[in-house]
Amino acid sequence: MRTLKLTLSYDGTAYAGWQLQPQRPTVQAALEAAIEKLTGRPVRVRASSRTDAGVHALGQVVGLQTDCRLSPEVLRRALNAYLPRDIAVLGVEEVPEGFHATRDAVCKSYRYVIHDGPIRDVFAQRYCWHYAYGRLDAAAMHRAAQTLLGRHDFASFQSSGAERAHTVRTLFEIGVQRGGAGEPDRIVLEVEGDGFLYNMVRAIVGTLVEVGRGEQPETWPADVVRAVDRSAAGPTAPPQGLWLVWVKY
Amino acid sequence: MRTLKLTLSYDGTAYAGWQLQPQRPTVQAALEAAIEKLTGRPVRVRASSRTDAGVHALGQVVGLQTDCRLSPEVLRRALNAYLPRDIAVLGVEEVPEGFHATRDAVCKSYRYVIHDGPIRDVFAQRYCWHYAYGRLDAAAMHRAAQTLLGRHDFASFQSSGAERAHTVRTLFEIGVQRGGAGEPDRIVLEVEGDGFLYNMVRAIVGTLVEVGRGEQPETWPADVVRAVDRSAAGPTAPPQGLWLVWVKY
Repeated sequence: MRTLKLTLSYDGTAYAGWQLQPQRPTVQAALEAAIEKLTGRPVRVRASSRTDAGVHALGQVVGLQTDCRLSPEVLRRALNAYLPRDIAVLGVEEVPEGFHATRDAVCKSYRYVIHDGPIRDVFAQRYCWHYAYGRLDAAAMHRAAQTLLGRHDFASFQSSGAERAHTVRTLFEIGVQRGGAGEPDRIVLEVEGDGFLYNMVRAIVGTLVEVGRGEQPETWPADVVRAVDRSAAGPTAPPQGLWLVWVKY
Repeated sequence: MRTLKLTLSYDGTAYAGWQLQPQRPTVQAALEAAIEKLTGRPVRVRASSRTDAGVHALGQVVGLQTDCRLSPEVLRRALNAYLPRDIAVLGVEEVPEGFHATRDAVCKSYRYVIHDGPIRDVFAQRYCWHYAYGRLDAAAMHRAAQTLLGRHDFASFQSSGAERAHTVRTLFEIGVQRGGAGEPDRIVLEVEGDGFLYNMVRAIVGTLVEVGRGEQPETWPADVVRAVDRSAAGPTAPPQGLWLVWVKY
């Protein structure tokens, strides 16, 4: 048996998220079906993160075991031929036995994109949150975000439904920037951490938007962390603005 | 009656093109339905260009007559509320009676996007032509394109199905560039002209790609023009890479 590490990009719009669900299209089901078609054997894969319905990935990492002997490059091309058009395998690597895509991840990067112009961008609607209620103060959101850096109990930013026993996580980097010259209506949050609770990035975004629209002061997100209570945070931002960018091992 | 000029952006993926067709979703039908819902009266609109199925618009221009008395700004907002999410009205202007969106256009700009990386970009598949057969020589395509500048009989670049009696058109600008640092696999053609025949931009792209892949010399597109014969040109590039960028009056 070989252990393989796949790097995957997908447009999450058409899927009920990463994880297998009966009767619903999921990215995991599509990938397992493509691998099975290629190797002739059922397979179970494991991802670094179970992205939600509508969430996108630029570099999801998936681990699997197979006795298929094709070279990584041939595997990549064959899987891309079998996969639906909205999923692509970017890379295939052989890794030591025992590689665990979820547990061995040491750092993950997520991006969240907001469009705050008055008129929707028809080409970005599947890929961002259109906040149509006025200009957000991206600089204030950036300053407020800095108070979340470091090691904290992020229980306030965890949605119910997939609670983790341990809710302490470390954020290594977080930044909010309004887009360059060409895209003045685009605000991008980038965040890196050693792990994220269920819906944590989207709850952070919803909380920072309360600051950006002037509803809460820049010190508020730190208060939310201290509350250790989900009802203290802002609303959960919609899924289609969220991107899993990369995962480090 | 007032005459209005609308500027429209749309993702053409879900539509059978601009023009009304029985039993098929078209951008024109969606726009007319939204206007009728707002004003309570049937309306007929006229566009600068009848974009094909799958073709996108960043700035399509549409003219119409109405006795509706709402201000342009209120009209814009109300239409965007009634229109499907993949169509947006960017602007509404009052123009002199007699404005003719098709006939009065003096210059149009189109863009065509090619992705020539080995792995598909899942987020761009609706918005570009994925040319998966190797690297194209964008610089050679640019040089070859320059031979098309100016006033020519472009009959060789007209598809059958919607022939025009007069096939002489003038190209004011044409350029092919490989994308910047972030997008090395992206090739963009930009072209401006006083008018375009049916499928002309896509036939020009298909012809330039023959040069880009080394199948034909850089002098070939000029030979194709001189042939005045559609069978002389390269294949028609697929629709999803084509964008109507702006129209000047």
